[in-house]
Amino acid sequence: MTPHPDPRAGAAVKAADRAHVFHSWSAQGLIDPLAVAGAEGSYFWDYDGNRYLDFTSGLVYTNIGYQHPKVVAAIQEQAGKLTTFAPAFAVEARSEAARLIAERTPGDLDKIFFTNGGAEAVENAIRMARLHTGRPKVLSTYRSYHGGTATAVNLTGDPRRWASDNGTSGVVHFWGPFLYRSPFYSETEQQECERALQHLEDTIAFEGPATIAAIILETIPGTAGIMTPPPGYLAGVREICDRYGIVFVLDEVMAGFGRTGAWFAADHFGVVPDLLTFAKGVNSGYVPLGGVAISGAVAATFENRPYPGGLTYSGHPLACAAAVATINVMAQEKVVEHAAHIGETVLGPGLRELAERHPSVGEVRGTGVFWALDLVKDRETREPLVPYNASGAANAPMAAFAAACKKNGLWPFVNMNRTHAVPPCNVTEAEAKEGLAALDVALSLADEHTV
Amino acid sequence: MTPHPDPRAGAAVKAADRAHVFHSWSAQGLIDPLAVAGAEGSYFWDYDGNRYLDFTSGLVYTNIGYQHPKVVAAIQEQAGKLTTFAPAFAVEARSEAARLIAERTPGDLDKIFFTNGGAEAVENAIRMARLHTGRPKVLSTYRSYHGGTATAVNLTGDPRRWASDNGTSGVVHFWGPFLYRSPFYSETEQQECERALQHLEDTIAFEGPATIAAIILETIPGTAGIMTPPPGYLAGVREICDRYGIVFVLDEVMAGFGRTGAWFAADHFGVVPDLLTFAKGVNSGYVPLGGVAISGAVAATFENRPYPGGLTYSGHPLACAAAVATINVMAQEKVVEHAAHIGETVLGPGLRELAERHPSVGEVRGTGVFWALDLVKDRETREPLVPYNASGAANAPMAAFAAACKKNGLWPFVNMNRTHAVPPCNVTEAEAKEGLAALDVALSLADEHTV
Ligand SMILES: Cc1ncc(COP(=O)(O)O)c(C=O)c1O
Ligand SMILES: Cc1ncc(COP(=O)(O)O)c(C=O)c1O
Repeated sequence: MTPHPDPRAGAAVKAADRAHVFHSWSAQGLIDPLAVAGAEGSYFWDYDGNRYLDFTSGLVYTNIGYQHPKVVAAIQEQAGKLTTFAPAFAVEARSEAARLIAERTPGDLDKIFFTNGGAEAVENAIRMARLHTGRPKVLSTYRSYHGGTATAVNLTGDPRRWASDNGTSGVVHFWGPFLYRSPFYSETEQQECERALQHLEDTIAFEGPATIAAIILETIPGTAGIMTPPPGYLAGVREICDRYGIVFVLDEVMAGFGRTGAWFAADHFGVVPDLLTFAKGVNSGYVPLGGVAISGAVAATFENRPYPGGLTYSGHPLACAAAVATINVMAQEKVVEHAAHIGETVLGPGLRELAERHPSVGEVRGTGVFWALDLVKDRETREPLVPYNASGAANAPMAAFAAACKKNGLWPFVNMNRTHAVPPCNVTEAEAKEGLAALDVALSLADEHTV
Repeated sequence: MTPHPDPRAGAAVKAADRAHVFHSWSAQGLIDPLAVAGAEGSYFWDYDGNRYLDFTSGLVYTNIGYQHPKVVAAIQEQAGKLTTFAPAFAVEARSEAARLIAERTPGDLDKIFFTNGGAEAVENAIRMARLHTGRPKVLSTYRSYHGGTATAVNLTGDPRRWASDNGTSGVVHFWGPFLYRSPFYSETEQQECERALQHLEDTIAFEGPATIAAIILETIPGTAGIMTPPPGYLAGVREICDRYGIVFVLDEVMAGFGRTGAWFAADHFGVVPDLLTFAKGVNSGYVPLGGVAISGAVAATFENRPYPGGLTYSGHPLACAAAVATINVMAQEKVVEHAAHIGETVLGPGLRELAERHPSVGEVRGTGVFWALDLVKDRETREPLVPYNASGAANAPMAAFAAACKKNGLWPFVNMNRTHAVPPCNVTEAEAKEGLAALDVALSLADEHTV
């Protein structure tokens, strides 16, 4: 786990990258990707001898950290046995992964449709909902991310939607609850809950309940800011969906599999959706995998009528074997309980303590290993440290914050005016404290931009 | 490679599958998935001691067969080193896979955007084309399959589109060349080529050239029937695209990486598209991977402007390591040359010989390890053996044909009124002949349905 510096190897990796790799969500000529030599647990290192504590879990997906030996061994074993097989067959790893997932998903979400990642999970959940109801529209929130394929990106609320939004996707966006920046001028959680539900009711009434196939929510919105919904909100949405025959989809691609200190974020609220999408944490992304957990009622729609969706690698044996090993490791090593504990005892208190000392921290939100610091210019007005969707000079305060973290050995998650503390679920107490210390230094820079 | 019968283990795998796995493109209550115990090379076996010669290559993707030891070893090695890392970084396996792919793709398709599979490759290719041109519409053919996500399934011509087609996807379907069932009443290949190009020209003229972002074609359409385009057709489409500033996308998800006896099917025609989509054969699906190879001109559009698309597992290191190993194995073992050779010397002659003796074979089409038998009731009228999109009783002749193949130890690819002979690229001469012998028996059943 000690980085062995090898700048020449790093330069070669970088040169081939720059010549041939086209990167996600980037202006190809303006990026400078760090060449990564290795990773283990909560750390990764480059070719120059720099080691970073990863407070991003990759893209919030390495819930068991990098290179967990038991999961690596399981991948190696399955590779030697049967690395791939077509989706129409029954295969041991596929059956077992589906069984273990169904065992953990809430309620009667007992049938698993496997995909390669989160976007495809969302695509298929929405297709199921539309065909189950025979209705066209889907409601999703402005503060959300659901993936990069056509349906998923149109459901997405953040600016990554704009370039691909053709205005005819059948998606209607509404506002979810978010007390700190309340769209409803609420002053208490209870008020925010009531007003957000009323807003949803009103939107449904004016859109026409019989036109709406599904409401899709991230149980706790992730990339958009880790906004835990107020007590009663999700139960209220469930009740609205039942009343109008709308399919309730919870997107747990980011929040699922331990991130919030529970197997699923829905567990915190006692709410059972009709469809639940997952990816990332299901196997810590060791092999690409995602999927949809399907209720009995929705599954019944496709009992005698073909489900018109699919993909070549649905239920990929290697990916499923990684899921089986990951879930078993998480159970054996009590990783979920650990995430809850570290959130309650170290990350939560530590971040709140930082907020007390740093005027740039407007709010600390989160649970488990799923935390956001909402950075502001002014605690009174709550004006964000940088404007929504800022780039270039307008984004300089956040860029400086990120650079300071890296200089202090912490790789930070940064989005808009926020930094998220989202380390692996099995991050140790010492690592969490190391991360908090680096954030402390970097926040001093952010403080300079406050009024 | 000898199957060890273990019916009890098979029953357990099957039971968990039936309880928890939701399968692609299927009525869940009407399927009876075979439990597969293992696979090697061109064969797989079940838990009851039955072994099958796989003339489907899974879903036409295991181009190097099952469990190639060098690729398995490479996966095991990469798993032990760095199984996953986020897409924004430069990583050795990712760089090397991109370099090896770019080295083989035609022309200046030198930047590689990685996805998890074929549908996401198509989604991103179309997004690139729309943003590159600023135009909304995409033209694709009726006889095509492009994947299961929203954009990809709307581009698809086959009936799998219908359930997800909202009519507002910006896709316009036209007819590609197909002399055996000519939409243009052609009698020669030259006529078919000219008329198909005229039809495309006319369609573009009436749609409005300035509204069209892209034309997407499978270089040789796969699932839809392996129809090699007549000489001059693809060059003609290239010329039309150049004339109108339309992005030319070739979908080589199925035809690429050796299937046709060339690295890419485009190589047979000397045509360079602006974007080329791939998946499947790139690493024989040992780990989910797909991507888009991007021309200099399209890449330049996203040099200083962010490309608004991405996914968590873009350039997944384990998947890329499998691609590196697969491409190297294919080069070292001359797998592509072998595919060409086996097509010319065994599969092509053998299938044509079957056609001479079996009146149910209307046409033999293909190249390399990419062959279709178009089965007919009547060679004169060319009436298909079963109607388009037949199911149940109407499809009985094809179901009986497939059952007969399986009884004779051959797992056949069956679609509509066709069977495709699409074994791995490294299928041996003996295996190919074994497959032909099983087809011979099964075709006798099909013959009973001819006039
Ligand atoms: C909530 C949520 N849904 C869907 C996705 C898309 O997943 P993927 O990138 O695997 O397609 C993400 C990715 O961050 C996500 O956070
Ligand atoms: C030509 C073509 N494009 C795209 C796809 C979709 O690929 P995937 O199933 O990996 O999404 C396929 C799958 O068969 C294909 O044959």
